[in-house]
Amino acid sequence: MRTANTPRPGGYVHGYAEPETRRLGDQANTLAALLHTGTAYPAGSRVLEVGCGVGAQTAHLLAGSPAARFVSMDLAAASLARARAHLSPHPSVSWCRADLFDPPFADGSFDHLFLCFVLEHLAHPARALAGLRRVLRPGGSITVIEGDHGSAVFHPDSAQARAAIGCQIRLQAAAGGNALVGRQLQPLLAGAGYREVRVRPRTVYADQTRPDLVDGFTRNTFTAMVAAVRDDVVAAGLSTRAAFDRGVADLHRTGESGGTFHYTFFKAVAVNPG
Amino acid sequence: MRTANTPRPGGYVHGYAEPETRRLGDQANTLAALLHTGTAYPAGSRVLEVGCGVGAQTAHLLAGSPAARFVSMDLAAASLARARAHLSPHPSVSWCRADLFDPPFADGSFDHLFLCFVLEHLAHPARALAGLRRVLRPGGSITVIEGDHGSAVFHPDSAQARAAIGCQIRLQAAAGGNALVGRQLQPLLAGAGYREVRVRPRTVYADQTRPDLVDGFTRNTFTAMVAAVRDDVVAAGLSTRAAFDRGVADLHRTGESGGTFHYTFFKAVAVNPG
Repeated sequence: MRTANTPRPGGYVHGYAEPETRRLGDQANTLAALLHTGTAYPAGSRVLEVGCGVGAQTAHLLAGSPAARFVSMDLAAASLARARAHLSPHPSVSWCRADLFDPPFADGSFDHLFLCFVLEHLAHPARALAGLRRVLRPGGSITVIEGDHGSAVFHPDSAQARAAIGCQIRLQAAAGGNALVGRQLQPLLAGAGYREVRVRPRTVYADQTRPDLVDGFTRNTFTAMVAAVRDDVVAAGLSTRAAFDRGVADLHRTGESGGTFHYTFFKAVAVNPG
Repeated sequence: MRTANTPRPGGYVHGYAEPETRRLGDQANTLAALLHTGTAYPAGSRVLEVGCGVGAQTAHLLAGSPAARFVSMDLAAASLARARAHLSPHPSVSWCRADLFDPPFADGSFDHLFLCFVLEHLAHPARALAGLRRVLRPGGSITVIEGDHGSAVFHPDSAQARAAIGCQIRLQAAAGGNALVGRQLQPLLAGAGYREVRVRPRTVYADQTRPDLVDGFTRNTFTAMVAAVRDDVVAAGLSTRAAFDRGVADLHRTGESGGTFHYTFFKAVAVNPG
């Protein structure tokens, strides 16, 4: 649900257009409390934010751990430039342009790793997690947050809305990603050699009694994310313009009076046994 | 996910067979903390439990509100007999055999209403909620808890497991129920004239790091519930025995090493404006 860490030739990559950047900002603010609660790093600890993108989560990391020292890393120079423009000068964060599959740091350089909406864009998330473990000191922690589009449950239910979401999932899969990765965090982390893996769902539920969440999540995050891939979906032959638009219209209905929307993020914390 | 309040001629009704009764007991114990947290009625308050079935939730209600006075109501005499056998003699609960569409109580007789896994079995949940409002005093509260099978998200993902769950949903729909009712609680309660409606998800997430939940929920509650309708599914022509069994086997796999299972209940509290 954010800037891809690794741009790919062709293929779907969200997060690079201007409205997308605004959407990612909205999303980060609405979800910050939900996703970041429980994440606070001690003073002086060295934290690597992997796949920081435009810095949407970086701001919240800094707010939650004002005395930690962050290195925020991304492969996309354009995203890093935006992140820097948005947050710098900030004494607690250094920006690093690098490939997360080849982090330019010595073994055990960090006390903590943080990844939010990164694995969903990777064809080899297990390899990424295993490689990153090298730069985490023994006993250090990794935090991983991912969504899972299979968790979207809404009223009124709509086969067309579900089909539109399905198009987004297939597009992301065709680009080598996985919009259903949230449910896999425990086996991915355990398989990559982390221990004491603890995964907990972080659920968003919005109805008319919570207009802030309807606006911030149902409309401006989830529905906007699906709507944003319309041209790519049609170009890929996954749907017709009309059918996709009906699905998006039905998603918008879930944000109106009597509608409900539910989505689950998964947050994992684990330890590097060394 | 429990005893139907209203047995129907023909049609699928779960909760009446002996293994089902055990399953419902397992489920209630595993989920008690998740579902009942936040539900505590003051000393002396009059609470109507609607659709108490075999009393699986009644025990937890009594534990959470030891000085409240409960009337636990169900249409099924056999279920009430089991509930009484399980819990009586208990000074705080009276058992009442009645139709929830025609509760035999004067207007405003209760301070609180409680319904858990009841609306999912009703063809007219809105009418039930509106009718029950009559016996709730102005300013009194209603608490409604329901699951939503559309929220089931698991790893390894499996089209056959999803199809088996889909059979259960269709069977319940054919019997006049709705296994996807959780997402509808806010509009149902608001439409029935309740106010200050507050719905919150209560999510179960189980993986190998939580063997109690894998046993208590993934295996002995959710998968057992799906497996229990096998004969009815086949009789109704919704699936073949072999295909359904593959789906159930895949659900069991989600409870093994590397598997994950996620499900969301919805808990609503609202007020009768009078």
